Amino acid sequence: MLIALDAMGGDYAPTETVKGALLAVRETDVEVALVGLPDVLETELARQGHSGSPTSVRVVPASEVVGMHEPAAQAVRQKRHSSINEALRLVKEGEASAVVSAGNTGAVVASALLVLGRLGGIKRPALGAYFPTGRYGVLALDVGANADCKPSYLVQFAHMGSIYMERVYGVKRPRVGLLSIGEEEGKGNALTREVYDRLQHSPLNFVGNVEGKEIMNGEVEVVVSDGFTGNVAIKMGEGMAEFMFRELKKAVSERLRYRLGAILMLDALRGMRRRLDYAEYGGVPLLGVNGVVVICHGRSHAQAIKNAIRTAKEAAASGVLEAMQADLK
Amino acid sequence: MLIALDAMGGDYAPTETVKGALLAVRETDVEVALVGLPDVLETELARQGHSGSPTSVRVVPASEVVGMHEPAAQAVRQKRHSSINEALRLVKEGEASAVVSAGNTGAVVASALLVLGRLGGIKRPALGAYFPTGRYGVLALDVGANADCKPSYLVQFAHMGSIYMERVYGVKRPRVGLLSIGEEEGKGNALTREVYDRLQHSPLNFVGNVEGKEIMNGEVEVVVSDGFTGNVAIKMGEGMAEFMFRELKKAVSERLRYRLGAILMLDALRGMRRRLDYAEYGGVPLLGVNGVVVICHGRSHAQAIKNAIRTAKEAAASGVLEAMQADLK
Repeated sequence: MLIALDAMGGDYAPTETVKGALLAVRETDVEVALVGLPDVLETELARQGHSGSPTSVRVVPASEVVGMHEPAAQAVRQKRHSSINEALRLVKEGEASAVVSAGNTGAVVASALLVLGRLGGIKRPALGAYFPTGRYGVLALDVGANADCKPSYLVQFAHMGSIYMERVYGVKRPRVGLLSIGEEEGKGNALTREVYDRLQHSPLNFVGNVEGKEIMNGEVEVVVSDGFTGNVAIKMGEGMAEFMFRELKKAVSERLRYRLGAILMLDALRGMRRRLDYAEYGGVPLLGVNGVVVICHGRSHAQAIKNAIRTAKEAAASGVLEAMQADLK
Repeated sequence: MLIALDAMGGDYAPTETVKGALLAVRETDVEVALVGLPDVLETELARQGHSGSPTSVRVVPASEVVGMHEPAAQAVRQKRHSSINEALRLVKEGEASAVVSAGNTGAVVASALLVLGRLGGIKRPALGAYFPTGRYGVLALDVGANADCKPSYLVQFAHMGSIYMERVYGVKRPRVGLLSIGEEEGKGNALTREVYDRLQHSPLNFVGNVEGKEIMNGEVEVVVSDGFTGNVAIKMGEGMAEFMFRELKKAVSERLRYRLGAILMLDALRGMRRRLDYAEYGGVPLLGVNGVVVICHGRSHAQAIKNAIRTAKEAAASGVLEAMQADLK
């Protein structure tokens, strides 16, 4: 199976994207197309000891690169031959089975819509975020693709998320929660009250409203929200985690006994930090477009890129796209 | 100055409310009216060694109690003589300067609207949450009083929050941020884009959109949002903090060296936990009603009640209500 990697996307591209691709082909039964400026990529491959690239990694040329902070809509229209567009084209044309990118998220979403289009019947694609809690983890969606949503979008997000967790993570009848402000029915805003009602009458395993606590306890496998609320929530979670690590660091610098304690606990603290870094978990899916697209954090290192390539492969092999298509009918 | 305490409100009432009141009058120049079932409160006072209550603490009778999980609107209408209503009446009639309650938040908000009414010109009251970050801390509002908001509500929240941080915490020209999904202007949903524009043309010290990171870094002193988004955000922050403490505990139970490390770091970890428990910070204000109302976490212990009484006293003495009234004109 061939995975198209946007080798120019990400804060540490192309060094880490190339390294990640090489790791992936070594550890997984997969081939990777490194899409980007050919000179740059060949040089990087050579630098990493792979002049005359291994057969399972090949360079596919793209003549442009979208900057990490470039306005997305503009970049997509003006840079038709960007690495992300060319990577998506490989999927569109059936050469590759999935795309992985650590590039500008807005641009990846816009490009995916432009090049692959929406899955028939899907109103809006949704961006997922994965929390490593509970037995299978929790997929939250939408976390940023659609700031303003109609009830019908959220109902589709619930279906897509449910199918994704079932197919890719092997969860039987994933529990679906609606991100809201109190567990009782009737709590929430105008949007969620309407969505609550519709989900209750859906075939999904809908368990009602959930709050941050339930997400972090792993009491559901899918959490749906509009992209504004979802994005605010994940950023608040990240902000809190960073705050706690920062506070701990400050305390440690103040007293010797805290420093000693921290040294003893170092592996545990590092493990927790890693666990919270969702890039580690192999990226997050963009659901609802007509192809498998996995998006990584901009600051992804090789390990995260490798994991994302594995996720992309598993998603493509799982038939999640076909299952969604069937569900929509 | 007399503070009316809803002595029946909270998970640990009346033991902890009475204890908190006794602590408050000992440590602060304040008198407290314990409002609630007189038998229960007299017994509790006696049990805590104060038969013949001290002159600075007196019992004011109320014949009903609102349960922590009772539907708010119904409770307020059916229990006219509840402890929260009677406490608010003391403020309404000018006998007390402020109310403190750890009771059912929804009921407190509904009662405050019923008994005190809104401050003239205020469209909707807002519930604040306080984060102990940065130099002065951050007041987030609304975190739950209004799930659906119009732009004009958020603009008023910004004004009220700004005046509160200025008067009660002594912040000169508090920095006001708008909770959104990216720092650039134009990012956000339909509501925040409209509010952004209005705040930019307001006399407030508006610094633009903020995310969880900026809240937890203390880069602003006031954060405004609709009550749905604000509530989801604080619950997500709480959920993340609980998750991290739980993970740490789990790790500690697994290896001796982690356990030793945790013992050495115990004070630092406890300090952080306390710092994150916003009840410790003396409760949060309900802004926009015609009186000073401070709401505590339902799970408040005596220390938190005492701090809330101090906050209520400081808020009442600060002239924050009069300043808001003047600002509205």
